[in-house]
Amino acid sequence: MAVRPTARLLPLLHSPRQLARTPAHSRSLASLSTMSKLSVNSLNPAIRNVQYAVRGELAIKAEQYRVKLQQNPTSHGLPFSQVISSNIGNPQQKGLNQPPLTFFRQVCLFLPCYSVTPESPIHSPSQVAALMEYRDLKNLAPNAFPRDVIARADELWEEIGSIGAYSHSQGIPLIRKHVAEFIEGLHSSSPLRHIIDLPCSPFSRVARDGHPAYPEHIFLTGGASAGVSLLISMLISEPGKSRILIPIPQYPLYTATLAQFSGVPVPYYLDETNEWSTSVNEIRSLLDKTRQEGGTQPKALVIINPGNPTGALLDRKTQNEIVDLCEQYNLVLLADEVYQTNLHRRETHPFTSFKKVVVESGKDVALVSFHSISKGVVGECGRRGGYFECTNISDDVIAMMYKMVSVGLCPPLQGQIGVDCMVRPPKEGEESYALWKKETDSIHKVLAERTHQMVAALNAAEGVSCVDSPGALYLYPRIYLSDKAVEAAGAAGKAPDAFYALALLDATGICVVPGSGFGQKEGEYHYRLTCLCPGVEEYVGKLVKFHDDFTKKYPYA
Amino acid sequence: MAVRPTARLLPLLHSPRQLARTPAHSRSLASLSTMSKLSVNSLNPAIRNVQYAVRGELAIKAEQYRVKLQQNPTSHGLPFSQVISSNIGNPQQKGLNQPPLTFFRQVCLFLPCYSVTPESPIHSPSQVAALMEYRDLKNLAPNAFPRDVIARADELWEEIGSIGAYSHSQGIPLIRKHVAEFIEGLHSSSPLRHIIDLPCSPFSRVARDGHPAYPEHIFLTGGASAGVSLLISMLISEPGKSRILIPIPQYPLYTATLAQFSGVPVPYYLDETNEWSTSVNEIRSLLDKTRQEGGTQPKALVIINPGNPTGALLDRKTQNEIVDLCEQYNLVLLADEVYQTNLHRRETHPFTSFKKVVVESGKDVALVSFHSISKGVVGECGRRGGYFECTNISDDVIAMMYKMVSVGLCPPLQGQIGVDCMVRPPKEGEESYALWKKETDSIHKVLAERTHQMVAALNAAEGVSCVDSPGALYLYPRIYLSDKAVEAAGAAGKAPDAFYALALLDATGICVVPGSGFGQKEGEYHYRLTCLCPGVEEYVGKLVKFHDDFTKKYPYA
Repeated sequence: MAVRPTARLLPLLHSPRQLARTPAHSRSLASLSTMSKLSVNSLNPAIRNVQYAVRGELAIKAEQYRVKLQQNPTSHGLPFSQVISSNIGNPQQKGLNQPPLTFFRQVCLFLPCYSVTPESPIHSPSQVAALMEYRDLKNLAPNAFPRDVIARADELWEEIGSIGAYSHSQGIPLIRKHVAEFIEGLHSSSPLRHIIDLPCSPFSRVARDGHPAYPEHIFLTGGASAGVSLLISMLISEPGKSRILIPIPQYPLYTATLAQFSGVPVPYYLDETNEWSTSVNEIRSLLDKTRQEGGTQPKALVIINPGNPTGALLDRKTQNEIVDLCEQYNLVLLADEVYQTNLHRRETHPFTSFKKVVVESGKDVALVSFHSISKGVVGECGRRGGYFECTNISDDVIAMMYKMVSVGLCPPLQGQIGVDCMVRPPKEGEESYALWKKETDSIHKVLAERTHQMVAALNAAEGVSCVDSPGALYLYPRIYLSDKAVEAAGAAGKAPDAFYALALLDATGICVVPGSGFGQKEGEYHYRLTCLCPGVEEYVGKLVKFHDDFTKKYPYA
Repeated sequence: MAVRPTARLLPLLHSPRQLARTPAHSRSLASLSTMSKLSVNSLNPAIRNVQYAVRGELAIKAEQYRVKLQQNPTSHGLPFSQVISSNIGNPQQKGLNQPPLTFFRQVCLFLPCYSVTPESPIHSPSQVAALMEYRDLKNLAPNAFPRDVIARADELWEEIGSIGAYSHSQGIPLIRKHVAEFIEGLHSSSPLRHIIDLPCSPFSRVARDGHPAYPEHIFLTGGASAGVSLLISMLISEPGKSRILIPIPQYPLYTATLAQFSGVPVPYYLDETNEWSTSVNEIRSLLDKTRQEGGTQPKALVIINPGNPTGALLDRKTQNEIVDLCEQYNLVLLADEVYQTNLHRRETHPFTSFKKVVVESGKDVALVSFHSISKGVVGECGRRGGYFECTNISDDVIAMMYKMVSVGLCPPLQGQIGVDCMVRPPKEGEESYALWKKETDSIHKVLAERTHQMVAALNAAEGVSCVDSPGALYLYPRIYLSDKAVEAAGAAGKAPDAFYALALLDATGICVVPGSGFGQKEGEYHYRLTCLCPGVEEYVGKLVKFHDDFTKKYPYA
């Protein structure tokens, strides 16, 4: 039946390095793809309208440079020897020095060992020892695993079994229970259960609200993005009409997902002159204007706190006003709180969850709060783990969410286990606690110092101003571009800040995201860069030197 | 700022077992959710229309039974002591005896060890040994890992680094290269590179088409479902109008995803009297009828081969006709080929990929082929891994796919590594080969025997007929229900086969999916059950005994 292949097969000339090129820029093969009838114009126009700058043109060019450097480490002809991906918050990427948290990896490492079951009917003589040893690493290497890690793995194994099996579509029930305990501010078995929410308590980073949370209202997800996408898809009841308020600048997941589901973004501007604060009055006047004009009222309000790309933190007063506003205008509050533990100045800029604010307001505001293992000090992006919690959402709406996540079967098990580790870090007194504390303290400290150092250097440069972000992983400096620069960008067919960012990449190998990908006021220019970088002084020195050179080339009038 | 919590917090009364209840059936708490303003009616009507039976009412009830059995192992009052989830192909679920493939787990286990980097700046004296040992398990336990596993992990580590980092959105380039080699039928480094596609060759299960494949045309995904969802979302260019041909019975992912994106399913019926074969004439007459009526022509044709839920395999002649049809009517061919290695009678019912058929036809048919690590003998569902390959799809359409997957950042790394293990199993001569072969042979053999045994027993029962599936993991027996049974179902407000399946669950603890979830001809009744079950004789005996009892209760006229 199957035709014997011809002896001549197209050789696989391309090395793995070459393959790093993205499809849009892929080489011309004797390719089948030239004869297609399926055209972009025949596809969903909503999909055509999706924009997502974080991994756009600039990231593609950065990848090309990376390939070039790998292929020609000595003769690449580039003015830099390393591409630095400051475009995406990816703490464990190669070249950075942020190692994974040991506790996380110990649990995750240990758990798959367990799933090589003793009931295996297969006993290849040469392998059986190894097979059994995997399961019993605690005997194999009795000192390699702290006792609390083994206990944790035992507990998860008892609940989950093999990580190769589908779980409950909403997420493993035991892990959802642990998430609820984290949100409440309890470790159910902890002797310190009553000590919660005190500033600087050992639990201040993990114990949260002091209000009940329910596992039934929690959905584990493959990262926060999957949850945001689900919620937006559900809220767009009238494609082309349904509106959602989003901050500008924003993380482009929101505009991209709105575009995908034909929702209409209603932008509200954050105030750069006041630490990128949120003006409730501005949102209110947008709503009133829409009402007066007889337009469709927005269904939801997106708040990113701590901010992405701004790093801003909302104060409690503003949060209260936002909740009042949501009640008054019947807005669902979508609270993107994935950076809730990335706080550089906790004393002056603490994090308060919207769950806490809504509950304490006593108001009937529908809230969905998103969290992730990709950020914080955990930074386990590649596992794809996160959760969202529903507050004041009715059971039938939650049942509909359950139906939708069922179609996708379940979130990745390794991501779910990651969520468990995040919400249940080692407790004081447990064997893993000291190392966990040392690692997390170190990451927090380094990030805070590095952020501050970068801000100081950027602000010292002429034509750059940068808010000193109290949270998240990013800075969003404003760059002042001359008319000459704007003209040159126009001639090149680029947005001015994209033109600047491309030149930055060409000169330094540093990949940032132009502000036009996040949104900004007309005539203003920014870029987002992550505060995850190797060698901060040299790095920020390059940014400043580039800016000076750029300004010399395109001087202010 | 944060309000000190009151001393009285709602106690966490619910045990993990209780939490297994799904939200729709969750207990009544002093819940916040009763005062919601967000109603189902205010949500996207397309989402309301989504149906997904595999994890529907019956699965929810099965979960309740499971909880009851766990809570009261001796006094549960149920006529069974175990719930058997025959509703979902989940090979590694608890209670089954299909262990994960050793090679898979060795690579996956070994790889995360590596990602505890030696550059870690953290050296808690009590932990440092363990930390270093994780990375160096090959020194710690020199006999635990075969050399080829260590080499494999080294190669992946070199490419990937930490599995905690985001990867290329389209999937790790090296792994896409390996997928392309698998599709071509090559292991690039194999001395047996020329021996491909011979029946019963050691590579016959992994080497495929003998035609070139390109990594740029391959997308790694979080399971096949994620890819199907992406493609359908892109193809629905006019919500409410764009049509896609789907088989009936079908895996409900297709109807669910079409409903989500407001696409219109055009059902074509598979022929149960002829081993659930696909009638190209039927599809053609549907297309001609639409054309005559001036309706919107379907944009795509979904083929599931091997079939789900039918287990049918297409013959090459039918595949050729399907490709001709797609060319003639300009249909994009969506080939769900996730069961391509689940073949019970390879001699009479081999698998041929649609990629091979399209390429050998020389026709310009746009094809997307889906594959997964959740099925086959791999069965690593919980990792969420899969891929799709595009053939005759233009670069700008592929660029649009890339944009869309970028919004979701990247597929789970553990799933991507799973794909690598699936497409590059150990080769003859490598240390892991013997065990891998023994394990996979055993799984294939057990599945084929069990399927045949179940079919024989079902066909021996009066009022049941069952096609002897040559592939996949399922059977889709037809059940003949009396008028009395149909009346009783109507009185209970249930579809007749759902009524039957609920009674089966109540009596035996066996959870199947009623045929109404997959589709069937008017007045016919079926259910889908997986061939993954413990103790086949006892199991199928229960099915038959239940059917007899049911027929006694609701006798034929």
